[in-house]
Amino acid sequence: MSLLDYFRSPKSNTASLAKERLQIIVAHERGNRSSPDYLPQLKQDILAVIAKYVNVSEDQVSVEYDNSDDLAVLELNVTLPDHKK
Amino acid sequence: MSLLDYFRSPKSNTASLAKERLQIIVAHERGNRSSPDYLPQLKQDILAVIAKYVNVSEDQVSVEYDNSDDLAVLELNVTLPDHKK
Repeated sequence: MSLLDYFRSPKSNTASLAKERLQIIVAHERGNRSSPDYLPQLKQDILAVIAKYVNVSEDQVSVEYDNSDDLAVLELNVTLPDHKK
Repeated sequence: MSLLDYFRSPKSNTASLAKERLQIIVAHERGNRSSPDYLPQLKQDILAVIAKYVNVSEDQVSVEYDNSDDLAVLELNVTLPDHKK
């Protein structure tokens, strides 16, 4: 489970930056080019799901999308506001 | 966007293994321990969303979940069947 190490890198250990963050990565390895790429649609659905759990607005979400021949990667980064309710 | 490199590692370049795969990673960096951990619930929602786009059954999905003090990581791996419809 080597990918976990990525998230466990020292950057997240700074106690003074106690922001709540949510990062979602979807990687779609298509077996061939003719497979449909549904990640742009999937993005909307995932954002809707997240909104069920956290109070998040569009401008708190940064989206990166990369699509090559047989690999599409969608990355969503959400920085949640401080708990000042 | 260094995480992209992870998915671009040589393992995915084997043309003979032209399986369609979908990998979803959700990392929740909680600012403090008292924040709720909603990833187990989120998992069900994400699976439901994926099922809208691909024909997938529970046994094609492998799930890893790791929860430490201030970081929860959910990893879903879906290997889709060959297109023999």
